[in-house]
Amino acid sequence: MNINLNKQSSEPLYIQIFEQLKELIQQGVLPEDYKLPTIRAFANRLDVNNVTIVNAYKLLEDNKLVYKKVGSGTYVLPMVEKLNISNAISDDREEQEYDYNGEDGYIDFATASPDPRLFPMKDFKQAINEVIERDGGKAFMYHDSRGYLPLRSSIADYLSVKAIEVGAEDIYIISGAQQGIDIIAKALLTNGDYVFVESPTYTGAAAVFKSRGARIVEIPLQNDGPDMKELEKLLQVIKPKFMYIMPSFQNPTGCSYSERKKKHLMLLCKKYKLLVVEDDYSGDLSYTEKPAIPLKTYDKSDSVIYIKSFSKIFMPGLRVAFLVIPENIKKTIASAKHMTDLSTSGFMQRVLDLYLNRNILDEHIKYMKKEYSVRYFEAVRAVKKYLRGALFNQPNGGLNLWIKLPESVNSSDLYELCKKNKVLITTGTLFLKGQEGEQYIRLSFAAVDVPDITRGIAVIGNAIEEIKKSNRLGDA
Amino acid sequence: MNINLNKQSSEPLYIQIFEQLKELIQQGVLPEDYKLPTIRAFANRLDVNNVTIVNAYKLLEDNKLVYKKVGSGTYVLPMVEKLNISNAISDDREEQEYDYNGEDGYIDFATASPDPRLFPMKDFKQAINEVIERDGGKAFMYHDSRGYLPLRSSIADYLSVKAIEVGAEDIYIISGAQQGIDIIAKALLTNGDYVFVESPTYTGAAAVFKSRGARIVEIPLQNDGPDMKELEKLLQVIKPKFMYIMPSFQNPTGCSYSERKKKHLMLLCKKYKLLVVEDDYSGDLSYTEKPAIPLKTYDKSDSVIYIKSFSKIFMPGLRVAFLVIPENIKKTIASAKHMTDLSTSGFMQRVLDLYLNRNILDEHIKYMKKEYSVRYFEAVRAVKKYLRGALFNQPNGGLNLWIKLPESVNSSDLYELCKKNKVLITTGTLFLKGQEGEQYIRLSFAAVDVPDITRGIAVIGNAIEEIKKSNRLGDA
Repeated sequence: MNINLNKQSSEPLYIQIFEQLKELIQQGVLPEDYKLPTIRAFANRLDVNNVTIVNAYKLLEDNKLVYKKVGSGTYVLPMVEKLNISNAISDDREEQEYDYNGEDGYIDFATASPDPRLFPMKDFKQAINEVIERDGGKAFMYHDSRGYLPLRSSIADYLSVKAIEVGAEDIYIISGAQQGIDIIAKALLTNGDYVFVESPTYTGAAAVFKSRGARIVEIPLQNDGPDMKELEKLLQVIKPKFMYIMPSFQNPTGCSYSERKKKHLMLLCKKYKLLVVEDDYSGDLSYTEKPAIPLKTYDKSDSVIYIKSFSKIFMPGLRVAFLVIPENIKKTIASAKHMTDLSTSGFMQRVLDLYLNRNILDEHIKYMKKEYSVRYFEAVRAVKKYLRGALFNQPNGGLNLWIKLPESVNSSDLYELCKKNKVLITTGTLFLKGQEGEQYIRLSFAAVDVPDITRGIAVIGNAIEEIKKSNRLGDA
Repeated sequence: MNINLNKQSSEPLYIQIFEQLKELIQQGVLPEDYKLPTIRAFANRLDVNNVTIVNAYKLLEDNKLVYKKVGSGTYVLPMVEKLNISNAISDDREEQEYDYNGEDGYIDFATASPDPRLFPMKDFKQAINEVIERDGGKAFMYHDSRGYLPLRSSIADYLSVKAIEVGAEDIYIISGAQQGIDIIAKALLTNGDYVFVESPTYTGAAAVFKSRGARIVEIPLQNDGPDMKELEKLLQVIKPKFMYIMPSFQNPTGCSYSERKKKHLMLLCKKYKLLVVEDDYSGDLSYTEKPAIPLKTYDKSDSVIYIKSFSKIFMPGLRVAFLVIPENIKKTIASAKHMTDLSTSGFMQRVLDLYLNRNILDEHIKYMKKEYSVRYFEAVRAVKKYLRGALFNQPNGGLNLWIKLPESVNSSDLYELCKKNKVLITTGTLFLKGQEGEQYIRLSFAAVDVPDITRGIAVIGNAIEEIKKSNRLGDA
């Protein structure tokens, strides 16, 4: 480790040390959990005061580059700080969905998949047959890596309704939002790069970034968006490749960014040349008069990659989603998509295009919103009634409730007890590490019908009471 | 660079130096194009004879770990030696396909896509509608990351006909062969790993390995398979993560491995714990009595990952293919697939399953084989007649002819002249770097009907004569 100090410089010595260590850590020269020299040894070596080293280390710690172990020393912070990445594989979009699927009498608040009974099968079948009649074998050829051009145009039109002004040339078709995240990671990340995420976040995204060797920095999420002070403080010292966020009905918290914070974020994008990846996974599902406005709508500096899947409102099995891509990274993204799978199913793209053009999809979204809002308000009512001592915000949109359990109740215990009673929930440990995760559960109501929502939440309520009681007995 | 010599050891000093340098290069401690110390300086430093260093460097060179620049020194060989990776994005499965598509009067020998007029649209439409009737919305839910179980069982049955004995649990469904390559790379490769490939090879695969930071080592391809001596020599010094090959009607050369070489390769797999990735992209298309037998059929040691796409015989736009996965890497592959796109379209999996079960696909393959063999024999006849001075092997299968041009003709010039005359070909420079690539062209006859094959190859023949003539005039 080579540190060169300029004692004639007007820059304080502790800043010089901080800057050089920061560089070494960011470049991966000092690896994860590397022990920095002791204060005294380092001060001697560099011929400076102990206090200078103390200040430099303090600054590194403030900037989430190192951590302290009491009585042991100062260490380089691992790329992933608190995220429970290893659990990503058992996250919401996961296997467990297929095991139960509403069969076997389970009430499933764990899956975020929509209820298949709500799919517009009749219209869809007709669209499929029309495409086959119209296009014949051509529909089953390889398609352009970037997507079927007419669909890209239709999506541009669809976005202009949301006041997102882009052209077909800015839109790339992908096979689902997860593939979008994977392609962005492939195109932009190399070993040791920084990525900012919300805390808590969707671990299925964080796992992808981590697999590319990225260092993940979590920005605490407040009710109206990220902690902006914390974000700017970090931006002053770290240049992340991008920040991955869900500004509308975030997963898992359900919270949405305020207009003020969206505007503030766009200012930071300009000031720090920050690239933002906006995963708009359920922005269509607002249950109040106020629609959710994507961050992309505010983007005048071409700083936002927008990912939109139809999986939550239409059919996840379609595997068609899209990206809106800033000009300067188009080539890289196209090449990464081509390497990933050459192209997305052209047939499904053609069917979706027919849908968009006839406004069948729009009608369907209205229908889904109505169905889901009934489920949402029932879930809210039931949680208030049955989950005594639980805390939650009402997101007024999306598909999840993020619930803080009463103090004495642990989400893992609750999960087990509910499962025994044929109710499935998601524990907070999938999103937050350790004890913090144990305080939360996520309830997804997309796949559960109204009577089961009431019944299921009552079962959770009973389970909470039972755990409370046995804890009291244990304490006594 | 730390080299520790044991002068008491029975192992010669030059071997000790070689082994330690090899390790440093393979671990990436010595980066690409790193200049090794001069002979004299290194000998002095290690206190050995100059000849010891010369011998160690020679061994490194033989093993493709370093290269010499005359008058300059010895350098670490870059990961990719000769492959023209930057061209991968304009490879055969690429954009240019969509630009012409048989329209505008172009005769297209560049695309390896099948002719859409041969797709079984009537049967396929019926299968689609049957699946919608039978499964309703369930067909459009998320599916298990590993694939739809009934399809995996059907594929296991289909493989037993090829004498590949595997169960549904060994089979994972993917969205096309390219995605299979991408997932394998993601699951198995990290920075600095070695991958062996055939030379020439499909650059779309090599580009994926390279993007994971792998060092690519090319094994020369002979008419009956890889140069086995070269392969074993390399295996003695390098442990690659896997070897990527196309043993049946290879792309671009069309050559197939002999039975002897397949068996030999399986012995090497056992001896060196070598993992092989077999891309069986057109093994179904043999135009003689003798079917192509996959390498996987010979695999008794669970050493072969088998990738099979239906894109060349069925419909590339289906985006359904499968992997057969050795036991010890199943978990890693499943997790990589999940991170990539959660799952492949369940709807298409269900339709393909119906196909396999009714033997409609088998009938269709027979039909495609007949159609393609007529095109193949016509292409062979026309090349013999019109391309005077060109050399080529007759692969008797697959979809490509790999043709060595007469000495004075350059493939880039030929490409330009043919394009002017509305005939598209693929230059060898997409598969081999520099002058070697300029000696070859690849003709794919999958998308061209018989009269156009004759007409198109006559045009190429005329272009060759024209170039020869202008070269002679230039020389005079």
